[in-house]
Amino acid sequence: MPQIKAGIINVTGYIGSELARLLYQHPQVELKSVTGRSAAGQELGDVFPYLGKTRLAIKDQLDSDIDVVFSAMPHKSSVDVVPSLLRKGIKVIDASADFRLKNAGEYPRWYGFNHPSPELLKEAVYGLPELHRDDIASATLIANPGCYSTSAVLALAPVVKEELIYPDMIIDSKSGVSGAGRTPGLTTHYSEANENTCAYSIEGHRHLPEIEQELRELNPEFSLSITFVPHLVPMTRGILSTCYARLRAGKLAEGVKAKGELQQLYREFYRDAPFIQITGKPPQTKHAWGNNFCFIYPTVDLRTGRLIVISCLDNLVKGGAGQAVQNMNLMFNLPETTGLETLAIYP
Amino acid sequence: MPQIKAGIINVTGYIGSELARLLYQHPQVELKSVTGRSAAGQELGDVFPYLGKTRLAIKDQLDSDIDVVFSAMPHKSSVDVVPSLLRKGIKVIDASADFRLKNAGEYPRWYGFNHPSPELLKEAVYGLPELHRDDIASATLIANPGCYSTSAVLALAPVVKEELIYPDMIIDSKSGVSGAGRTPGLTTHYSEANENTCAYSIEGHRHLPEIEQELRELNPEFSLSITFVPHLVPMTRGILSTCYARLRAGKLAEGVKAKGELQQLYREFYRDAPFIQITGKPPQTKHAWGNNFCFIYPTVDLRTGRLIVISCLDNLVKGGAGQAVQNMNLMFNLPETTGLETLAIYP
Amino acid sequence: MPQIKAGIINVTGYIGSELARLLYQHPQVELKSVTGRSAAGQELGDVFPYLGKTRLAIKDQLDSDIDVVFSAMPHKSSVDVVPSLLRKGIKVIDASADFRLKNAGEYPRWYGFNHPSPELLKEAVYGLPELHRDDIASATLIANPGCYSTSAVLALAPVVKEELIYPDMIIDSKSGVSGAGRTPGLTTHYSEANENTCAYSIEGHRHLPEIEQELRELNPEFSLSITFVPHLVPMTRGILSTCYARLRAGKLAEGVKAKGELQQLYREFYRDAPFIQITGKPPQTKHAWGNNFCFIYPTVDLRTGRLIVISCLDNLVKGGAGQAVQNMNLMFNLPETTGLETLAIYP
Amino acid sequence: MPQIKAGIINVTGYIGSELARLLYQHPQVELKSVTGRSAAGQELGDVFPYLGKTRLAIKDQLDSDIDVVFSAMPHKSSVDVVPSLLRKGIKVIDASADFRLKNAGEYPRWYGFNHPSPELLKEAVYGLPELHRDDIASATLIANPGCYSTSAVLALAPVVKEELIYPDMIIDSKSGVSGAGRTPGLTTHYSEANENTCAYSIEGHRHLPEIEQELRELNPEFSLSITFVPHLVPMTRGILSTCYARLRAGKLAEGVKAKGELQQLYREFYRDAPFIQITGKPPQTKHAWGNNFCFIYPTVDLRTGRLIVISCLDNLVKGGAGQAVQNMNLMFNLPETTGLETLAIYP
Repeated sequence: MPQIKAGIINVTGYIGSELARLLYQHPQVELKSVTGRSAAGQELGDVFPYLGKTRLAIKDQLDSDIDVVFSAMPHKSSVDVVPSLLRKGIKVIDASADFRLKNAGEYPRWYGFNHPSPELLKEAVYGLPELHRDDIASATLIANPGCYSTSAVLALAPVVKEELIYPDMIIDSKSGVSGAGRTPGLTTHYSEANENTCAYSIEGHRHLPEIEQELRELNPEFSLSITFVPHLVPMTRGILSTCYARLRAGKLAEGVKAKGELQQLYREFYRDAPFIQITGKPPQTKHAWGNNFCFIYPTVDLRTGRLIVISCLDNLVKGGAGQAVQNMNLMFNLPETTGLETLAIYP
Repeated sequence: MPQIKAGIINVTGYIGSELARLLYQHPQVELKSVTGRSAAGQELGDVFPYLGKTRLAIKDQLDSDIDVVFSAMPHKSSVDVVPSLLRKGIKVIDASADFRLKNAGEYPRWYGFNHPSPELLKEAVYGLPELHRDDIASATLIANPGCYSTSAVLALAPVVKEELIYPDMIIDSKSGVSGAGRTPGLTTHYSEANENTCAYSIEGHRHLPEIEQELRELNPEFSLSITFVPHLVPMTRGILSTCYARLRAGKLAEGVKAKGELQQLYREFYRDAPFIQITGKPPQTKHAWGNNFCFIYPTVDLRTGRLIVISCLDNLVKGGAGQAVQNMNLMFNLPETTGLETLAIYP
Repeated sequence: MPQIKAGIINVTGYIGSELARLLYQHPQVELKSVTGRSAAGQELGDVFPYLGKTRLAIKDQLDSDIDVVFSAMPHKSSVDVVPSLLRKGIKVIDASADFRLKNAGEYPRWYGFNHPSPELLKEAVYGLPELHRDDIASATLIANPGCYSTSAVLALAPVVKEELIYPDMIIDSKSGVSGAGRTPGLTTHYSEANENTCAYSIEGHRHLPEIEQELRELNPEFSLSITFVPHLVPMTRGILSTCYARLRAGKLAEGVKAKGELQQLYREFYRDAPFIQITGKPPQTKHAWGNNFCFIYPTVDLRTGRLIVISCLDNLVKGGAGQAVQNMNLMFNLPETTGLETLAIYP
Repeated sequence: MPQIKAGIINVTGYIGSELARLLYQHPQVELKSVTGRSAAGQELGDVFPYLGKTRLAIKDQLDSDIDVVFSAMPHKSSVDVVPSLLRKGIKVIDASADFRLKNAGEYPRWYGFNHPSPELLKEAVYGLPELHRDDIASATLIANPGCYSTSAVLALAPVVKEELIYPDMIIDSKSGVSGAGRTPGLTTHYSEANENTCAYSIEGHRHLPEIEQELRELNPEFSLSITFVPHLVPMTRGILSTCYARLRAGKLAEGVKAKGELQQLYREFYRDAPFIQITGKPPQTKHAWGNNFCFIYPTVDLRTGRLIVISCLDNLVKGGAGQAVQNMNLMFNLPETTGLETLAIYP
């Protein structure tokens, strides 16, 4: 069976290096070429000793003979390189936000730039396989979702779609520090981040518009009102999102039975999703450490009739590189789980 | 000036040892006597080397010559020893929940026992100085608040009192592991708690009834509906509570001005509270590490018109031993901050 | 190709659960049966959600149709079950220390019991493939090495064998907390182990006699004098051992050239060892996180003419379950790396 | 009693902010003025919220009316500002290495610059009160020791002075990450430093020459041969140094008695040192968290006749700012412990 020839742009960040790990181990992929501006000329194994076995050099430019490119460039940079790749007939999976928002008008507000290729926003498919499996299979450009967005949208999609709740939702997310990337700064300095928890971007985090876009698409009539507050907690990997909304009366049975019905609804909604696991008790980020699972625990606060849904995942895998590989599998007609079956590492 | 003679029951837990630290350093206190069942007979410095300077032995029973006793016994045990101390004329500050709930009928439900001294529930004062300063000053029995409760009630008291919000509230709290105490268990085993975040007690955490009791007392007409979800995050000390509620229309100015008015309202509400600091940006648990401060950041999510209040504190100090000492200061007519002025330790 | 049918005794500890992860993913193994006393009757996925995909129940007894058993029982218990397994013709890989020491007389001193099956100590092979590859291939009973021992012996074997050093050696090891197992205790309680480093077992750690045995076997004339001090550092996985010895004069070139010769000697010594990587700069435990590699950095302190060798590995993989699987591969004539090729997970 | 007027140069690093904490709380000090280049113009409480109570602004220049200046500038910068302060009659306590080495010729080799004021190296006193109490009392310029150096010299001084050991010594130190300062970089990036242990500066760490200088001064005839290997472990504060040397025959009793004699010798050596605590079992860095203690555990490895001494301290307090304040106390004829009596914070 022919191997997919893959390349990674900007392999030196955490999404880039995680892509290298997953693609190198993928049985149907040949990782041909990786780039990284500041590290160009070095061996990948010099920058990341654990990737020494790849025997790849970091280059300035990708090789030409490539079937699919994963761009791990920062926002606003990716948009500059993607169009020419597409013109060459290369499929692109973009880990940045540059093609996530359908409405070009959102870019100035959330990302501070005018989108130079608004026509590609229509072509791009938002790469959340659990919602867009078919579109992904035929896409040439995938906008790989944000880590927070993945956890939040997966947690809320079933109840938004089925309109079990009122449209006021609160998403309180807790993320490990690797989500902030590999570029050093005071917030992610060990002595500052260790033994510390804080909220940030309360005025509006950039993942909010994609959360809204995806939930709205599931139920266009729904006048969403979402408050999203991300928090930084002292761990390297993992996101846990706790979501709250009021249940509509009469949609679920009374009392404890409501919980069972809710669990059933979620299991049904995700029955074809190999990486979603609906749990019967609150999940822990540790259970997804290093793999592509998203655990979802939907329940009812019986005292107040409020819905609580808790989801968790590894921000660099299902919230990043793993989901990108899952998208690639679908684009190349491989089983969705190929190369992603490894168990979490615990403890 | 005569010294207050103090004793600690059950010094071997984290609240007990933190009380020993604070009372030993308190300029107006002589820490006379400490007890601890399993460690009786040992030197305090053998169990906790950092407390060696206290030169105290751990005994079976407190000395008789004591003005105030801090009970750091677990729930359901404290209630057995407190009445006899009170009969001897000793003031008691109880760190357990045994005297926190005014309604004896709540004990079977939340704590699984019938309260043997319901008459003392009327006598006991809930030891949150920011709300009950005067009652505390004349009390003989203080029910020291829970750590989560302190952070949540302080965050929400001003807006409940002033009825700025609708009575639906969500409290999403993140706590360090020391809140679970010093008794080893799988949940607090290092390899399990490290690099892990999870929610727990979603069905109803025991601090919820005291949160409701205190907020209801501020506004008895208010039909509260509170969802409280505590989380465990991988750090030793610190609680951060993120609270959400919908603002009532017309109570605050439109737009950004609302934030300023809110800040003003909080500053006003806590103008006499030396340990409350209203912040202009999201606070970090690290800023309260080792001291008695509670930082509160009230703001408005302008997109949704929702109130967000974030509070943080050290769960063993303002959420435990420090607040107990603050209560003692009031009971003995000392300045509220005596012995509690130390700065946080950072980083 | 027929699958190896494997069973795990005592799957509920960290070595047991790590064995389950590796064996479940091993392409030539069918994990048939797992036992665990306290958890018998439960699903493996109930105890360890990340192992849910194994769809195994925890039983009292292993199934009868097994080719190889991994015993993850504690010391002194394993010795009771191994003989009967061997009599049934089942190969055994024992993760405990019960068959590591050749001299039965060492057991009372180091482990506090008289060995009931001293004849098996001759039959057992010390499962360090880098030293005993051929014996392992034909063995029926493997004594899987201790985690500290693996890091120390691999670091020092080349220079002991070649007698480059004087026989006075110091091994200063730093271990993550998972090495202490899954049973909760005060030392491994999160709030005690976090933000803390300490030495322990200075009087003589139980891994010392196996370190001495293995190094002595490499050079029986060498009158070893080893000081070994293990330390606990606040991380879950990883061991880093820093080893010191004085170089014999005239064995290596003068000055910087000595370093190159030393590197060369180590590369030569381990040229057939797929899991040993000799590094050109100090290695980090993180580079081995979750995989079976041991990184070794040999160098010379030119100021003092002293040898320094630093080795690191994941204590649960190369220091435990991974090495056990490596041994199994050799016993069943599979390529040594089968099922162990995964890259480390980083960061 | 008149207050000492103190200033801090470069308050924005961790040593600077820790000095601010300690000096603000010191009963005999008025912290008058703090500087910091990049943050000049801001309030100290804006940069460090926990220091808000100081109500100090960060300035470009110190006020003129100052008795003592603490310089927390980096190496090579401090030497430029100290001479003019001294000329104005201001006492200086310098936290950098710029005045630690008596031999100006060492600076090019270890610090990469020619010392511009070699005459001040004679005047400067190495600020380790346990060795130089009298000289410190009369000094005008104190070179505050390095954090590693403090732990190592205090651990080894008694046995070097009494010549109980051979001059071959190994110092294996484990440090928390705050020792690397507040400037972000990849090594101290949370996701890199968390769950990681490594050695560094094996070729020769800059604290080595001061360790040698101080030990040599205790016993000039002793031909020292010291190997020092520092390690980074994932915690914020704390250094633990494990020191090894061979005992000279006949200096101590045989067997277990040797340990008692050794303990006695250390207690005697440090009988006037209020911050040294000789322990009967291995100490933990946590026991010194946030205070000025140094715990020292001397013992004998009876199997090999080797001395092991373990010391630990808080790198920012006894290894930095606390020791600087201790020096100030001596210089101003205050009790050595003034302002430094606080207990450690635990857990």
